[in-house]
Amino acid sequence: MRKIVISTGGGDAPGLNAVIYAVVKSASMRGWEVYGSRSGYRGLLDYDDLVRLTPKEVEGITPIGGTILGSTNKENPFAMPITNLAGEVKVVDVSNRVLENFKRMGFYCHIAVGGDGSLEIAHRFAQKGMPVIGVPKTIDNDLKATDRTFGFDTAVATATEALDKLHSTAKSHDRVMVVEVMGRESGWIALYSGISGGADVILIPEVPFDIDKVCEKITDNELHDKHYSIVVVAEGAKAKDGTVVVKEKGELGRQEVVLGGIGERVARQIREKLGKDTRSLVLGHLQRGGSPTTFDRLLALRFGAAAVRMAEAGTFDHMVAWTPPCMSAVPLAEAVSSRKMVDLESDKVMTAREIGICLGD
Amino acid sequence: MRKIVISTGGGDAPGLNAVIYAVVKSASMRGWEVYGSRSGYRGLLDYDDLVRLTPKEVEGITPIGGTILGSTNKENPFAMPITNLAGEVKVVDVSNRVLENFKRMGFYCHIAVGGDGSLEIAHRFAQKGMPVIGVPKTIDNDLKATDRTFGFDTAVATATEALDKLHSTAKSHDRVMVVEVMGRESGWIALYSGISGGADVILIPEVPFDIDKVCEKITDNELHDKHYSIVVVAEGAKAKDGTVVVKEKGELGRQEVVLGGIGERVARQIREKLGKDTRSLVLGHLQRGGSPTTFDRLLALRFGAAAVRMAEAGTFDHMVAWTPPCMSAVPLAEAVSSRKMVDLESDKVMTAREIGICLGD
Amino acid sequence: MRKIVISTGGGDAPGLNAVIYAVVKSASMRGWEVYGSRSGYRGLLDYDDLVRLTPKEVEGITPIGGTILGSTNKENPFAMPITNLAGEVKVVDVSNRVLENFKRMGFYCHIAVGGDGSLEIAHRFAQKGMPVIGVPKTIDNDLKATDRTFGFDTAVATATEALDKLHSTAKSHDRVMVVEVMGRESGWIALYSGISGGADVILIPEVPFDIDKVCEKITDNELHDKHYSIVVVAEGAKAKDGTVVVKEKGELGRQEVVLGGIGERVARQIREKLGKDTRSLVLGHLQRGGSPTTFDRLLALRFGAAAVRMAEAGTFDHMVAWTPPCMSAVPLAEAVSSRKMVDLESDKVMTAREIGICLGD
Amino acid sequence: MRKIVISTGGGDAPGLNAVIYAVVKSASMRGWEVYGSRSGYRGLLDYDDLVRLTPKEVEGITPIGGTILGSTNKENPFAMPITNLAGEVKVVDVSNRVLENFKRMGFYCHIAVGGDGSLEIAHRFAQKGMPVIGVPKTIDNDLKATDRTFGFDTAVATATEALDKLHSTAKSHDRVMVVEVMGRESGWIALYSGISGGADVILIPEVPFDIDKVCEKITDNELHDKHYSIVVVAEGAKAKDGTVVVKEKGELGRQEVVLGGIGERVARQIREKLGKDTRSLVLGHLQRGGSPTTFDRLLALRFGAAAVRMAEAGTFDHMVAWTPPCMSAVPLAEAVSSRKMVDLESDKVMTAREIGICLGD
Repeated sequence: MRKIVISTGGGDAPGLNAVIYAVVKSASMRGWEVYGSRSGYRGLLDYDDLVRLTPKEVEGITPIGGTILGSTNKENPFAMPITNLAGEVKVVDVSNRVLENFKRMGFYCHIAVGGDGSLEIAHRFAQKGMPVIGVPKTIDNDLKATDRTFGFDTAVATATEALDKLHSTAKSHDRVMVVEVMGRESGWIALYSGISGGADVILIPEVPFDIDKVCEKITDNELHDKHYSIVVVAEGAKAKDGTVVVKEKGELGRQEVVLGGIGERVARQIREKLGKDTRSLVLGHLQRGGSPTTFDRLLALRFGAAAVRMAEAGTFDHMVAWTPPCMSAVPLAEAVSSRKMVDLESDKVMTAREIGICLGD
Repeated sequence: MRKIVISTGGGDAPGLNAVIYAVVKSASMRGWEVYGSRSGYRGLLDYDDLVRLTPKEVEGITPIGGTILGSTNKENPFAMPITNLAGEVKVVDVSNRVLENFKRMGFYCHIAVGGDGSLEIAHRFAQKGMPVIGVPKTIDNDLKATDRTFGFDTAVATATEALDKLHSTAKSHDRVMVVEVMGRESGWIALYSGISGGADVILIPEVPFDIDKVCEKITDNELHDKHYSIVVVAEGAKAKDGTVVVKEKGELGRQEVVLGGIGERVARQIREKLGKDTRSLVLGHLQRGGSPTTFDRLLALRFGAAAVRMAEAGTFDHMVAWTPPCMSAVPLAEAVSSRKMVDLESDKVMTAREIGICLGD
Repeated sequence: MRKIVISTGGGDAPGLNAVIYAVVKSASMRGWEVYGSRSGYRGLLDYDDLVRLTPKEVEGITPIGGTILGSTNKENPFAMPITNLAGEVKVVDVSNRVLENFKRMGFYCHIAVGGDGSLEIAHRFAQKGMPVIGVPKTIDNDLKATDRTFGFDTAVATATEALDKLHSTAKSHDRVMVVEVMGRESGWIALYSGISGGADVILIPEVPFDIDKVCEKITDNELHDKHYSIVVVAEGAKAKDGTVVVKEKGELGRQEVVLGGIGERVARQIREKLGKDTRSLVLGHLQRGGSPTTFDRLLALRFGAAAVRMAEAGTFDHMVAWTPPCMSAVPLAEAVSSRKMVDLESDKVMTAREIGICLGD
Repeated sequence: MRKIVISTGGGDAPGLNAVIYAVVKSASMRGWEVYGSRSGYRGLLDYDDLVRLTPKEVEGITPIGGTILGSTNKENPFAMPITNLAGEVKVVDVSNRVLENFKRMGFYCHIAVGGDGSLEIAHRFAQKGMPVIGVPKTIDNDLKATDRTFGFDTAVATATEALDKLHSTAKSHDRVMVVEVMGRESGWIALYSGISGGADVILIPEVPFDIDKVCEKITDNELHDKHYSIVVVAEGAKAKDGTVVVKEKGELGRQEVVLGGIGERVARQIREKLGKDTRSLVLGHLQRGGSPTTFDRLLALRFGAAAVRMAEAGTFDHMVAWTPPCMSAVPLAEAVSSRKMVDLESDKVMTAREIGICLGD
């Protein structure tokens, strides 16, 4: 009887539990046993963090946000920060230990669910001889190898719902509302939620913006007797004139976002230039939370079932991908290499412009 | 300056207003004028039912369910039932009057949003010389020419949410809950909502079912210490042994559904065979209502914008279709000719089976 | 150290888990141990159905519908149907066994969460010497002793949301939608959801209706250019002229509802009298499901905490009740004796009439 | 025939449209005419801002957030800032003009919906001879004269939903999430949403907090194997040791909140003291938006209907108030004089403590 191990790594995304559910159920269907490794690779470093996952255990987890296995975006077995008794932090390569444990426990393969960081680590393990199958997870939908990733539709739904709520307040008070959504490298969430949520302006990393164009749109609204405006700004949007908002990950956490997130900056500029009552809001972690939409549940379940099919076929060092109309296997090496940006010639962007949305250019 | 007219026909679907919004906005962007014909073709029979649609008029309608133009599935200008003063009903062909009015008002083209019935009528008008562009609408997602239709994702979301709600009650009371969802000819809504909503059994028209297999699954659940089951049944599901549930549209309306809908019948059989506490529920019109999901809003807006692009290009007698990754134009004659059934070899159906869902076969 | 046992009985209601959560947390705070009896009194008949509930166990259950302990409305220890090996069913009084087990395990008291049936049983146990505290549960809000019961606000929210969804479809198609909601004896859910959900007609048990008045209202809407109507009917509504819809609980389950529920009957009469396109829908179990609203969560948590306070004070054979602005203790004997009907002189009913809602009289 | 005018003032709150709906419907029922004054008193200064409100006009507005009349918290007819052609701002008393217009148009009375600022202005008009009836609106629920105000339940629901979403992310990543909710003077929203949403810590203005107690609670969670915590902070919460966060309304708008909102400050302190991964989020305007809950719809509709009843009875210079179980009339002079703080002896606060929530003291 085969035994497989599953892990979830990186920032959480709605649908992770659905992937786990499908893996457990469809592996059990084949008579296999499934184990979960807690917080990324911890279960392969310490038995205490390895849990047996039976169908009973995963019953009802599909609609639940987060991941029952826990996740982390700080631990890489190839460069693990370890604190010794003296309190000093040393970076150690524990990948061999992971591999040995994997073999000692007799695992047939490892299903690694994660973003580009996690998938890269998975690929390195594959090169070291671990049979690995990747399942892509990025709430930003910016992975080139797959048409869609789970979590994205839910994030867009949450952002759209927030825009729906802000409309009434903006309209009642003749206000400009600036909403900052996720998207450091690409503007997918901003574009989708902005179009669906009736935004007047959408600013995305792919289109450097001119604040005067933004103000023109707001003024044009006034002329047409619409005295409020909704501006959606992706985290990574930047001004044409080079005003780049620097954001570093790491120690400071959200601090610098708060001290001058792009949303707040845009709001301030609009306020100064137009004298309109302008407010800003950062949606932040709300976009990662909550029960996955049906779209994301279905996609995640299909990913999980397809991963087990790939395991059965022995298609290792590959990632499952959605390439409509079917699922396919993409080599991990390729999968993590390139990002998917918003195509400015696509009918989505054309639609945005044609229904009167200003993209800041 | 061009003037165009838009109509919505057939049963309502979430997203109709989004189509109208996109048509009005993107036509206005080109300097065109848009008029709405109320309740299908009524605005082309009677001026009182023709309304001017400006961007101001359609502001904020995208998230609203239904259609601001009203809809009907009873009126066909080629065979219109007309009641005379004596109370007699006569079927009359008023299509020439519609065409004359269309020309008299100087319309450049007609954007007809509707299901297969409405699109067929649109095609007949196209053959008579009216420049027509179709926008597909079927909540059942069963149109072959387009990968997806708007309204479907919302219907699935509503059904999934209902399943989520029923889980807790079923579990608390060790009950079998049978839920009947829409789908006369195809099982799309049942399949998608059933997988997403954690159903144990999904019965669809494409797979004639054996009630004993259904009962086996429920009993198997018991063995695995799961004392409740959720059964999703499409309206058009039928038993293998020929027990066909006949449902005619028309006068009787929902009456016969209530007197013995397939959901209630399945529930009764389970109750008799297993002696389990079993309840049934018909979701009915709830599935057509409510605010469209972001997926449906986006798709509907893109359909609307694409229809105006087709109008500009003069691609008449065609329907806009989503053929990922782009929008395309399909001849109306082709578009309405064939339905899309659930592909039993698809990875969705495979996923369903692999995660342990019984399809009744 | 004190040990207490908690049980949930009767039909499920959103908020049951919140009560359990609060009992476990606030008892643990006092250093007590809490045990849960599965499916009503089963844990006091069979050790296997008794579970230890620690704060860890109940973490995160507040927002979850149903009850983690399971519930039943078929088992009464004073008259328990028991099937012998020959398949014969005999009704046996096992209350002494329950009491003995209760004492043998050294329980300090029993917190019984349930409807009038369960509370009556609890009172009988109190008379036999078991220290019992009741927590009222009725989704119908028809218990006189307490101003509100948990679950009701959620049921009303679900019904209102359904009405919101049906509006767009009714309006788009010039239709009459008849919606049957829970309420056998009283019209609370119908009244609250009908007012909030913009119903035109609300029929409740407290006001025997005249179908001609209902039709008059619908016709009056037409005159005022509102071509659709929403009719909300409580399960127990009845016509003035004596047309009573008989519904017996028991073997037949929902069957007779389906064969002629009051909603379907009203719809049929409207269709016949006015010739309007009329549809009906039974919300049924959807109203019991789902995550409790914040109102219900808060009320249920307060009930749970108050029950433990009563346990500490030794106020047994009483039920916790909300008597604004504070919680109080009501003798169980009194608590179950009288129902709360809709007060026809209350400002809620006045409001309904004044904003133009027809109550059928 | 009587003519009345209605206005909405101050920040918007879910339910404003429900009040307008009920006023229009129940006044029309009496044969009266209703007019709406846009953006507070503007309709009484300029005819263009006065709109006729018929039942047709208000159809379907109950579920819609915001106010169809618009609102402002910047204009006070007794001290109106007016900009002359030279660009100078002068503060002018235009109250006599408002009163004259009111009389010239033959209005019978004015129904003023608003917060304490708006109600005070209403009272001054009453003293000048305008028959005025107030309807209380404060999303913070901090008006002593009425048990509840509409909008509050919706704000709490929005905050609770956000907490539900953050749970999964906090849990998956072993994180502390700090959420700042509305409440400058009182902690109602924080308390209600915190209890319902499973917060570990709730900081409110009524209880000056000790950050060490907060950290103790988080550490205690760790000991009990709960590696994440949710902290809810009211805008106006302040530390025991005098670290008061000063926030002035006015020119700076949200700016200083962003530069050091109490939520961000608390998060920073936790991060520094415990070294835990800690994030903060400001819910801000999301809490004012969206469709009112059924609770708020019902309350707002009852307020509107009661206001018209008071108008009929001639009870002017009074405000409608909910004093369970009935509506009553409170003199405006009294109504605006005192705020309602969270009662620290109430069973709600006791419940919070008993289920293990830390209030920071």
